[in-house]
Amino acid sequence: MATDNRKFYLHPILISICITCVVCYEPNWNSLDTRKNPEWYDEGKIGIFLHWGVYSVPGNMVWFWYYWQRQKLPEYVQFMKDHYPPNFQYADFAPQFRAEFFDADEWAKIFKDAGARYVVLTTKHHEGFTLWPSKYSFNWNAMSVGPKRDLVGEFSNAIKKSGLRLGLYHSLYEWFNPLYMKDKANNFTTKEFVEAKTMPELYELVNTYHPDYIWSDGAPWDSGNSSYWNAPEFIAWLYNDSPVRYTVVTNDRWGMDVSCKHGGVLTCSDRYNPGKLKNRKWENAFTIDKKSWGFRRNAALSDFMTIQEILHQVITTVSYGGNALIDVGPTPYGTIPPIFQERLKQLGSWLRVNGEGIYRTVPWVHQNDTVNPHVWYTVSKYSSVLVYAFLLEWPDNNIVKLGAPEPSNKTVVYLVGYPDPIPWKAGPNGGIQLTIPNIPLPQMPCVWAWAFRLVDLSN
Amino acid sequence: MATDNRKFYLHPILISICITCVVCYEPNWNSLDTRKNPEWYDEGKIGIFLHWGVYSVPGNMVWFWYYWQRQKLPEYVQFMKDHYPPNFQYADFAPQFRAEFFDADEWAKIFKDAGARYVVLTTKHHEGFTLWPSKYSFNWNAMSVGPKRDLVGEFSNAIKKSGLRLGLYHSLYEWFNPLYMKDKANNFTTKEFVEAKTMPELYELVNTYHPDYIWSDGAPWDSGNSSYWNAPEFIAWLYNDSPVRYTVVTNDRWGMDVSCKHGGVLTCSDRYNPGKLKNRKWENAFTIDKKSWGFRRNAALSDFMTIQEILHQVITTVSYGGNALIDVGPTPYGTIPPIFQERLKQLGSWLRVNGEGIYRTVPWVHQNDTVNPHVWYTVSKYSSVLVYAFLLEWPDNNIVKLGAPEPSNKTVVYLVGYPDPIPWKAGPNGGIQLTIPNIPLPQMPCVWAWAFRLVDLSN
Amino acid sequence: MATDNRKFYLHPILISICITCVVCYEPNWNSLDTRKNPEWYDEGKIGIFLHWGVYSVPGNMVWFWYYWQRQKLPEYVQFMKDHYPPNFQYADFAPQFRAEFFDADEWAKIFKDAGARYVVLTTKHHEGFTLWPSKYSFNWNAMSVGPKRDLVGEFSNAIKKSGLRLGLYHSLYEWFNPLYMKDKANNFTTKEFVEAKTMPELYELVNTYHPDYIWSDGAPWDSGNSSYWNAPEFIAWLYNDSPVRYTVVTNDRWGMDVSCKHGGVLTCSDRYNPGKLKNRKWENAFTIDKKSWGFRRNAALSDFMTIQEILHQVITTVSYGGNALIDVGPTPYGTIPPIFQERLKQLGSWLRVNGEGIYRTVPWVHQNDTVNPHVWYTVSKYSSVLVYAFLLEWPDNNIVKLGAPEPSNKTVVYLVGYPDPIPWKAGPNGGIQLTIPNIPLPQMPCVWAWAFRLVDLSN
Amino acid sequence: MATDNRKFYLHPILISICITCVVCYEPNWNSLDTRKNPEWYDEGKIGIFLHWGVYSVPGNMVWFWYYWQRQKLPEYVQFMKDHYPPNFQYADFAPQFRAEFFDADEWAKIFKDAGARYVVLTTKHHEGFTLWPSKYSFNWNAMSVGPKRDLVGEFSNAIKKSGLRLGLYHSLYEWFNPLYMKDKANNFTTKEFVEAKTMPELYELVNTYHPDYIWSDGAPWDSGNSSYWNAPEFIAWLYNDSPVRYTVVTNDRWGMDVSCKHGGVLTCSDRYNPGKLKNRKWENAFTIDKKSWGFRRNAALSDFMTIQEILHQVITTVSYGGNALIDVGPTPYGTIPPIFQERLKQLGSWLRVNGEGIYRTVPWVHQNDTVNPHVWYTVSKYSSVLVYAFLLEWPDNNIVKLGAPEPSNKTVVYLVGYPDPIPWKAGPNGGIQLTIPNIPLPQMPCVWAWAFRLVDLSN
Repeated sequence: MATDNRKFYLHPILISICITCVVCYEPNWNSLDTRKNPEWYDEGKIGIFLHWGVYSVPGNMVWFWYYWQRQKLPEYVQFMKDHYPPNFQYADFAPQFRAEFFDADEWAKIFKDAGARYVVLTTKHHEGFTLWPSKYSFNWNAMSVGPKRDLVGEFSNAIKKSGLRLGLYHSLYEWFNPLYMKDKANNFTTKEFVEAKTMPELYELVNTYHPDYIWSDGAPWDSGNSSYWNAPEFIAWLYNDSPVRYTVVTNDRWGMDVSCKHGGVLTCSDRYNPGKLKNRKWENAFTIDKKSWGFRRNAALSDFMTIQEILHQVITTVSYGGNALIDVGPTPYGTIPPIFQERLKQLGSWLRVNGEGIYRTVPWVHQNDTVNPHVWYTVSKYSSVLVYAFLLEWPDNNIVKLGAPEPSNKTVVYLVGYPDPIPWKAGPNGGIQLTIPNIPLPQMPCVWAWAFRLVDLSN
Repeated sequence: MATDNRKFYLHPILISICITCVVCYEPNWNSLDTRKNPEWYDEGKIGIFLHWGVYSVPGNMVWFWYYWQRQKLPEYVQFMKDHYPPNFQYADFAPQFRAEFFDADEWAKIFKDAGARYVVLTTKHHEGFTLWPSKYSFNWNAMSVGPKRDLVGEFSNAIKKSGLRLGLYHSLYEWFNPLYMKDKANNFTTKEFVEAKTMPELYELVNTYHPDYIWSDGAPWDSGNSSYWNAPEFIAWLYNDSPVRYTVVTNDRWGMDVSCKHGGVLTCSDRYNPGKLKNRKWENAFTIDKKSWGFRRNAALSDFMTIQEILHQVITTVSYGGNALIDVGPTPYGTIPPIFQERLKQLGSWLRVNGEGIYRTVPWVHQNDTVNPHVWYTVSKYSSVLVYAFLLEWPDNNIVKLGAPEPSNKTVVYLVGYPDPIPWKAGPNGGIQLTIPNIPLPQMPCVWAWAFRLVDLSN
Repeated sequence: MATDNRKFYLHPILISICITCVVCYEPNWNSLDTRKNPEWYDEGKIGIFLHWGVYSVPGNMVWFWYYWQRQKLPEYVQFMKDHYPPNFQYADFAPQFRAEFFDADEWAKIFKDAGARYVVLTTKHHEGFTLWPSKYSFNWNAMSVGPKRDLVGEFSNAIKKSGLRLGLYHSLYEWFNPLYMKDKANNFTTKEFVEAKTMPELYELVNTYHPDYIWSDGAPWDSGNSSYWNAPEFIAWLYNDSPVRYTVVTNDRWGMDVSCKHGGVLTCSDRYNPGKLKNRKWENAFTIDKKSWGFRRNAALSDFMTIQEILHQVITTVSYGGNALIDVGPTPYGTIPPIFQERLKQLGSWLRVNGEGIYRTVPWVHQNDTVNPHVWYTVSKYSSVLVYAFLLEWPDNNIVKLGAPEPSNKTVVYLVGYPDPIPWKAGPNGGIQLTIPNIPLPQMPCVWAWAFRLVDLSN
Repeated sequence: MATDNRKFYLHPILISICITCVVCYEPNWNSLDTRKNPEWYDEGKIGIFLHWGVYSVPGNMVWFWYYWQRQKLPEYVQFMKDHYPPNFQYADFAPQFRAEFFDADEWAKIFKDAGARYVVLTTKHHEGFTLWPSKYSFNWNAMSVGPKRDLVGEFSNAIKKSGLRLGLYHSLYEWFNPLYMKDKANNFTTKEFVEAKTMPELYELVNTYHPDYIWSDGAPWDSGNSSYWNAPEFIAWLYNDSPVRYTVVTNDRWGMDVSCKHGGVLTCSDRYNPGKLKNRKWENAFTIDKKSWGFRRNAALSDFMTIQEILHQVITTVSYGGNALIDVGPTPYGTIPPIFQERLKQLGSWLRVNGEGIYRTVPWVHQNDTVNPHVWYTVSKYSSVLVYAFLLEWPDNNIVKLGAPEPSNKTVVYLVGYPDPIPWKAGPNGGIQLTIPNIPLPQMPCVWAWAFRLVDLSN
């Protein structure tokens, strides 16, 4: 921000506009879409998603309240009948959300060791319960009911201290908030809810915790357009004037009209994995517990993704240019259940070996190999001579055939994590054929998925 | 506020404007103060006041939250330490407020039998918890937490059905509402709280339940002026346009500047009994449990007023032109503790005999007798020949000496509830002297306080 | 039971055996029935009965568990369905029995002021929960669950300190104790329950708390004979060797065969008032809350006896030679509900005036007057010239006609509590006729029931 | 059990003795120790141990009560202060033990899939809470408090149905049972507790659930000798007359004098792994959560044994002739936490490949290899030509050198789970040297530990 020596030439109105931002975004999607995401996001690739709230108490589903009292699905109605007194209400769960063992530094360490570069916490889900002491959520927040702590504050400090990027999930709408229901009944021609709740809350969040990532959410079929939400105005402020204007990333869930179209990062649908390149940055948010975003008390082991399944998602996502946002459900008493820690530890051990092909990479000219359906590619963002081929299934005969790479006489191939080059020869019909030597098990860099570094292809 | 003699000259648009209020009040105290209270109020004299809310759960004090967490009085801090886990918050009490035995018709019957003519319920006290499903109190209301019922709705229906008048107490301010705290920190130059909470709530209450009495409350030392609260505008609407404009009564607690000065009925301070005539209608709100407005779990019998003490308050209050608003604390499970029922039943049995000197009376030329300090007067509003002298202490010698009445030869005196006239003679220095005959106990109309009907005094 | 005139001839071993009881009772009813009750009991007349236990938590009925799970009465089954989660068990109530406000000295003061001379506490009702830390009730006692206090110990100390006599109620049987159910299934031919539980417990109670009164209980239709219970052996020990052998009183509920026949005091059925003289001492245990022995959360005022009804029971009971044991239900948080305090205070105020005709009296030759059905008699135990006529209904004409007393010329009649003698004349057909003078109300000694002291009748 | 053709020669007394058991054990350790364990036990090798009870609710330690209230360790005292109200007692936890998701068939499947051959459940730990509706534990059992289910019954049925052997853990003593404390204060000269509680309970357990294994427990330093416990008498009954006399196994924890000396299986201390052969059968009970036998709410992943560590314990234990009893802590809501399921699943997958070297094996002449410290041996019980060498660490050069086996020219070596024989040559100084060929990863039978089947050694 150089000093302006010629400001006496500028029209005063322009001066007043420029005073807060040198490059100004206007509150419309055309303008907002011109902003480039800060680089940390695309380079980081791996995020952790946390769903934590009052729904963690029954330990059933994050959407429990909705299924039970809006949709009245028999399974949920019965669950309440089976386990709680008549007239037990959703808000009656809140005092049992105690977070008594919550240690944000321990959490940060777990996520850091998993190889994640950012973490996104549900500061408020569709239930409306705020994990911080919001001025706009009287007696329905974690300082006033249950934990008696500023969970977002403790979390933010720990995440930043550990060198991770801080993401704050925030739900625009609240299923049962009567002001929202009123606006909705008015076909979104009134904005009582937005003005009394959503927007003040969002400004409060940003100004208080300085997040690097605002992960907005709303039901794409059910919750109004971005103009109802005053979303363009908020994002313009975020980009132009907010304390995080240089580093913040946003996503696309800012209204029924913009989801998967506008905003920062396309998140489209849950578990979004488009299977092709996109011209906009996107993110694949998926859950380790395949059945739930939040803690489930009666989850079986078979409900959890294996490390192989997780790596499959991570590798294909990164290959197609996405980020992986891997969801974990903490307990109401504030811990990360050990099975999640196990998967995160496995992921971390894998990324410590293979991260060079994940972080700071971009899609290569090929994504899935043309011959070997178990192979996916990335290429270093900073050196196009470094191509990575990820192998998801080891061949029975120790010979790996790849169709996409065009080897040259300068080409060298490594199994990432193993010191010696791998012998190769050109394929009979193009491509390359690797012959894995007899590597003793202790020298195998990993057992769930493997990366080959292909240096200096002709391509 | 002049009557309009020329309305046939008015332009139709003006007519349509005027159609909702023929006589319009302006939103300022000079104008509002000109309104006369509907007659039911002054004629009714006896009201029941109910303090019921989340504070009923610890069963300590209505101001429990404030004493504990704002003032941090040692007794309250210790109470929490002694009985609850660390970090237990006020809002954590709410799920234990169940109201499972609440039967509004039973309550109405108890109050009706007590001789009350109106009942005032705390729809929301300073804790902010609304006993009705307010749109403006998400998850801090009796439909969403605890009872799962519209307590105000059930109460209103029952009270009206029983022929009593419906009073709704409403606290303007909320001790711990962050929006209120913000406005207050801004020295009441902002009105976020008023606009998002207080006013929408009040309109909602009036439009939904059609009360006959709005009993507003706020801390006179601590909660902003009436202009901050938009009180004049609300009351103007209440008097001009609301569905209860012809019958509604208000009180005076609409801001620090107007308390005990403006509005409908002066309530001034708690247990207000000015000891003299006032030129404005006033009300004495007092509690049967001398130590608390709400239910106390560990109240001793000695904490409760005796029926004699209650009658003393009622009689002196009515004699000075006030109404008596007698407070009762229901339990969190929805019952009126029997000791309150006992006092109300005693009051009802007394009023069934002596009510003719209470209801529909006005202050007489004298209030307290000039000679007998235990005697107080009223006079029928509709017949000035009917003067009532209430005797609070029976004379040891069966002779009652009164200084104020000037008997004439047409004067007849009755002990209300006893058929035969009471012999009397003129006092040596004016006044009158009654000689009570030998009335067998079963024929004594009552034993706690007595009324003499003095018919046709010369005065 | 002959006295021993030759004890110096006895072998020393026999002497040592006899040393603990000079007069020994044998463990059979013939022998045990020969014992005279200690005088304090008959002279005291007025006792307070307390039912306090886990049943106080639901605050429904003392027999709640039995009605709900043994008899499965629809009302009780529904109560649980309406208010508790499925599978909620009776024992799950126990942690909510906290007794946090229990102050035994306050209780003792209330009972003392009521004019009671002894107080009987349910140390263990049919639920089996012991209010003291019994060695024989692991984790089903007030020290291990709920209050964490020796309630019997605190109670005993306070009662004794205040000069009242200590009564300990103890239930022989326990509805759901599996050992009892086993013995019962064996048609009481086995005694596992008695030996493992009932008897060790009773000895523990007596040796620890030194009660003046053991109030035993069992279902007369359902709980085995006294020989099953080892009752004669226990009582023989109690009379011969126990630390309370000189002062202790027992009752008659020691088995299906002895109830209302043998033992110390006949209690026969609940609310026992035989309506005639008995040749054994008896007791009328009745409840102020007409519907329950224990605390009921949703009791209505009309469920409580009026003071007139209580006095009617007390007077007729004493007139027929019984004692009145007046039942009160404390709250689970350890207080005496104020309505009970009110009745006890009224009783105390009445007894302070009229106690001379109650305490230390015996039945007179007449009980109910022969002419006036509202009049009952007692006579001083120590002076037969002092006869008391209790009047339950005041005559409309101030003239009291009595048929039973035969006045002599020395006869003087007083209204107890009023200084001047009451004019009387002999009745036309025998008896006596009292003419009450014009007593000003403040000089009336009481308003609910009255005692006339008839001194020196010819009878 | 040959028929007795000469019984008419026997003295009638002997006949009466022999009538119930042809071979009778006497109630003393010399006699009892002569019994051979049923073969299923030694052949099964792998058991699962479950610690589940009221202690699962705080989710801290199984010994929580003892540490907190007997030893008053600051950490536990503080835990209660931090999270519970004052006066909260251990028994107050019980209603929160709900087991609402408990599905015994699911549990059985998990254990079966883990390769276990028996499962041992804590039917009653030192807290005294019985998981079955014992007649001797009134209101301190899972039918009366909390789950309202016969957990032992459901468990037993499911375990048997699935073909596993049923083990029932039972604690002789109970820390806080007052009868036990009394016997102990009497220096174990009285047996009130044993006769009223321990023994009736044990007979009830055996007669009701027909276990294959009674796993008795008591504190070896603190809980009386076996004669106090009547243990020899009980075990004699168990072996001679009980319904499970032919199949039942017991352990050695029957009193301070016999632990690690007498009884069925030596369990000695927790995590018992003697590091040498024993002349009695023994068992190594160890916990997957290294810090606790029961569920811990705030366990970290690092607290759990890795699968490698578990296999190390299993292999060394079996090599020395022991059984492995692997402990798991279910949740109070009735689930097996997924991290335990993960380890059990890993174990099962390993045993499905390598079980032939574990089940139905006996110790070989060598246990730990003489040269390679990472190798342990077993030999088939039914064919001594099948020796198994377990390799816990894979050699960096794919060459495995073993010192103990003496190969002959008939010797063939297999990597269990891999089809082709492994090339070998005799070691230079004896022993054998295996050269692992280039086995592609998908054909590696496992990655955590490996078994070599050495067929037809000269040894």
